[in-house]
Amino acid sequence: MTYRYKITFAYDGTNFAGFQVQPKQRTVELALTNAVNKIAKKPTPPIAVYGSGRTDSGVHALGQVAHFDLPYQIPNESLRKALNSILPLDILVNEVEMVDENFHARFNAHFKTYRYRVSLGEFVDPFKRNYTGHCKYSLDIANMQEAAKSLVGEHDFTSFVASGSGTKSNVRTIYAVKVEADVINQEIIMEFTGNGFLYNQVRIMTAFLLEVGSGQRTVDAVEKVILAKNRDLARGTAPASGLYLVNVDYDS
Amino acid sequence: MTYRYKITFAYDGTNFAGFQVQPKQRTVELALTNAVNKIAKKPTPPIAVYGSGRTDSGVHALGQVAHFDLPYQIPNESLRKALNSILPLDILVNEVEMVDENFHARFNAHFKTYRYRVSLGEFVDPFKRNYTGHCKYSLDIANMQEAAKSLVGEHDFTSFVASGSGTKSNVRTIYAVKVEADVINQEIIMEFTGNGFLYNQVRIMTAFLLEVGSGQRTVDAVEKVILAKNRDLARGTAPASGLYLVNVDYDS
Repeated sequence: MTYRYKITFAYDGTNFAGFQVQPKQRTVELALTNAVNKIAKKPTPPIAVYGSGRTDSGVHALGQVAHFDLPYQIPNESLRKALNSILPLDILVNEVEMVDENFHARFNAHFKTYRYRVSLGEFVDPFKRNYTGHCKYSLDIANMQEAAKSLVGEHDFTSFVASGSGTKSNVRTIYAVKVEADVINQEIIMEFTGNGFLYNQVRIMTAFLLEVGSGQRTVDAVEKVILAKNRDLARGTAPASGLYLVNVDYDS
Repeated sequence: MTYRYKITFAYDGTNFAGFQVQPKQRTVELALTNAVNKIAKKPTPPIAVYGSGRTDSGVHALGQVAHFDLPYQIPNESLRKALNSILPLDILVNEVEMVDENFHARFNAHFKTYRYRVSLGEFVDPFKRNYTGHCKYSLDIANMQEAAKSLVGEHDFTSFVASGSGTKSNVRTIYAVKVEADVINQEIIMEFTGNGFLYNQVRIMTAFLLEVGSGQRTVDAVEKVILAKNRDLARGTAPASGLYLVNVDYDS
């Protein structure tokens, strides 16, 4: 008999080599796996932690989700405190919930929302260097918002996937794209909600929209590039530092 | 003939071993000195950079000030851009001003303002771990504000100086102390303005006020401990991560 727990957690991705375990690297998955196994008194075989999906080196999370099975029951709040007491300070578990044994953090994820923060101005505030991307050109937000509309819907996003992605199909559905100016913080915030994103897709779409905003691309370029299904047409990739996995939605 | 420049700059202290040059350490003074000498084409002897004062490892600055002499004149804005293009991303020069040859960043400093940010709640937001201190106890802000009044004025701050300080006199004047709750960010902000601060003084005063706020000390303890001139009576030192040098004021 085991008990399945869903955890929702934030991390500052700056000092992690991404989410997924990799040999000799400091990763979020490794830190979580170590903490869970320590709490369970290091069982054999060790307990595995299943994330909703990977994030790259330097990418942050506000509401990443994972699940794992414990050999005994612990009250949600006690488990949350135990995890946070063991985990390094750049990961924080905000919610713990005992769930049905059929819940799967990856396979049951219905949609995900990513946010991208872009610092404006000639130079980046030193306190934002690990937490935003950067654009020194003035941006036409209305053009970016118009172009963003063309990303919404079910499309083959082959033009917006990094090489090296091993996915069979590049068809994904984007439900919403928001582009907003945060005047107080001198930032542009973009938010993408979809049923799944390809490798580097959000960072490539972000770079593309910034090129539209700065006038290097026309508003109708998005539609043309989607239809071309040619990854050479969208070459820029916005840096990892500005990207946040905001939340993962499941059937309630 | 040389030309003296005053620069006002911010830095994220997380990855610096403080302001002052130290053997084999990454420091702010070293980074600035390297940048200035590179711009001046590496003269012999090298150009020295004089800061308004040191900050410890991990302490941040929003408005630190320094001066140096160049062998030729450069427009302020060109010098600012040149410095920012060379400096590492965790330092940003916000202002450059050519000043009188008698200006001295340290000796002409009239007063300084430091800010201390304290995260509230049981655990610290991972994005704040390098940018705030932390207090998990509930705090009585009114008591802290009342206690803070006793710090204002000219006092012998021997009770609030770290051991190892080599100063001759521990008498300093504090002009103002503010204690405010930032409800949105779940923080307590303290601000100290004075004509100079002893080694670790702001961090020791901060820890003391937090002990008053959490009820471990009474409001009148500040006055008693100042009068006692005994450094064993104020033992806590708030962590460097929450401290910011906000600005340095000079005669205008």
